[in-house]
Amino acid sequence: MTLAQFNPWVAEIRDDRTRGASELARRSLELLAEAARTLAVVDAVELRERLLILVAELSAARPSMAPIQNLLRRWREGLPILTDQNLPVARRLAAEQAEALIAASRQAVTDCATRAARLLGPGRTVMTHSFSSTAVEVCRRLKGAGLRMIVTESRPLTEGRHLAEQLSAWNVPTNYITDAQMGLFIAQADAVLVGADSVLVDGAVINKAGTYPLALAARDRGVPFYVCCESFKWRGAGEPPLELEEMAPAELGAPAWPGVSVRNVYFDITPARLVSAWIDETGVRGPSGP
Amino acid sequence: MTLAQFNPWVAEIRDDRTRGASELARRSLELLAEAARTLAVVDAVELRERLLILVAELSAARPSMAPIQNLLRRWREGLPILTDQNLPVARRLAAEQAEALIAASRQAVTDCATRAARLLGPGRTVMTHSFSSTAVEVCRRLKGAGLRMIVTESRPLTEGRHLAEQLSAWNVPTNYITDAQMGLFIAQADAVLVGADSVLVDGAVINKAGTYPLALAARDRGVPFYVCCESFKWRGAGEPPLELEEMAPAELGAPAWPGVSVRNVYFDITPARLVSAWIDETGVRGPSGP
Repeated sequence: MTLAQFNPWVAEIRDDRTRGASELARRSLELLAEAARTLAVVDAVELRERLLILVAELSAARPSMAPIQNLLRRWREGLPILTDQNLPVARRLAAEQAEALIAASRQAVTDCATRAARLLGPGRTVMTHSFSSTAVEVCRRLKGAGLRMIVTESRPLTEGRHLAEQLSAWNVPTNYITDAQMGLFIAQADAVLVGADSVLVDGAVINKAGTYPLALAARDRGVPFYVCCESFKWRGAGEPPLELEEMAPAELGAPAWPGVSVRNVYFDITPARLVSAWIDETGVRGPSGP
Repeated sequence: MTLAQFNPWVAEIRDDRTRGASELARRSLELLAEAARTLAVVDAVELRERLLILVAELSAARPSMAPIQNLLRRWREGLPILTDQNLPVARRLAAEQAEALIAASRQAVTDCATRAARLLGPGRTVMTHSFSSTAVEVCRRLKGAGLRMIVTESRPLTEGRHLAEQLSAWNVPTNYITDAQMGLFIAQADAVLVGADSVLVDGAVINKAGTYPLALAARDRGVPFYVCCESFKWRGAGEPPLELEEMAPAELGAPAWPGVSVRNVYFDITPARLVSAWIDETGVRGPSGP
């Protein structure tokens, strides 16, 4: 396997428009584990070198998604010991470390969802935006407890459809709306629950574009706005400024008018002052601490 | 012509998803003028009866669009005199009255646009939502004066495309975005300018769904939010509560999931407290009067 052979793996992470940040972080770790087990190298030193290149490329593939960077950094922190091992042992340790982090990420999502479901309680109408695997887990826990959902389509690629399909399968009564209707339907919601792609040090939330106006509408109507995501989503202090990814204009399906820039920025930033509480695997925090 | 023959005319107004409220109000008056000239009736009394039925049906076709009701009411106010006329004179008077109101409506739009263009001034970046013929007129006046535009697509039927196409033809540099990106791009705007389908007595604005979250984003970022529409758009005191029209769910192009209601409410209500100024043909009014 050459470095060029990483390209399909990096492209898988870079080009994915359906999986959320947590899922793509775990998928990145799966690719690392696969690379650790199968890369054609002569010794543990070369294995380490190759894996570090792959880690760097996967980290750079989705700059708006903190859990990819965070989980890959955690994995890298255990890597130096590989050079003291023979190659089969080094392969096994590198792969097992990736798999342990995948399990930890899954457990964190589960624990977040449990806490969020407890906070929301039964019989609620909950509004969400985009597709969050954590929000899906919350719905799974509340689906037998009178949950009703309001789901935005989330243009341009309408990830909201995946959620609506799942809610339909679970018989959760659901209103499916255009993003433009969020200001109308917020009045029917008891709470808003969104996931996050990243959370900044000050609690500002990077999530699918449209989250910020939804948070504004929730605040204007007195509806609580909850952000539920595992702590792997939080960025550390001193990290470089976060880049909001812009995707292909073609995803909007608009004509190529001369002089018109079709823009497709995927994420917006919801200021911390609009968040009623952050829910992660360790607990629920309000704006003024736990 | 029988009453059933009104159906295509009423359907034209009811089913139109591209023209704004002003244009549809003028089109309703054109249909009235055509009816006045061509209806097969025996005398002026029967002409009046038939025309009143048509007016009632046209008025009811688009309940969210105040100018249709307002202009048809104005037309109706001159109608009693018809019964004192012979049929040819009655036909002519009824048609001419409709045509005079069409001209008054056009003049009002022109005057609004002139005032709005003067308020905005040259060299501005202006954000808008949906398609407003008044906003188009404002762009026409400012297109040679360094205007830049930010245009939302306006789901479900993406009326924003009509505006982007026109701006392209005028060489106005334009960013075309999904509705979900409004919170991102508001920071680049010097002002928001929207039309209205109706304005309530207290100044609240009925316009395409998405206008309310855009107004919230503008307020949050300190960007002035201007509503530009002729006075025919204002509803009177004591009118019945306004119905927000809901259109066919099929317009969203989503699957028919069991248990999921695909919702397509066309209009939302922007509270007067979020409006920086209302611009009509008579002047510019801030929240605390002219």
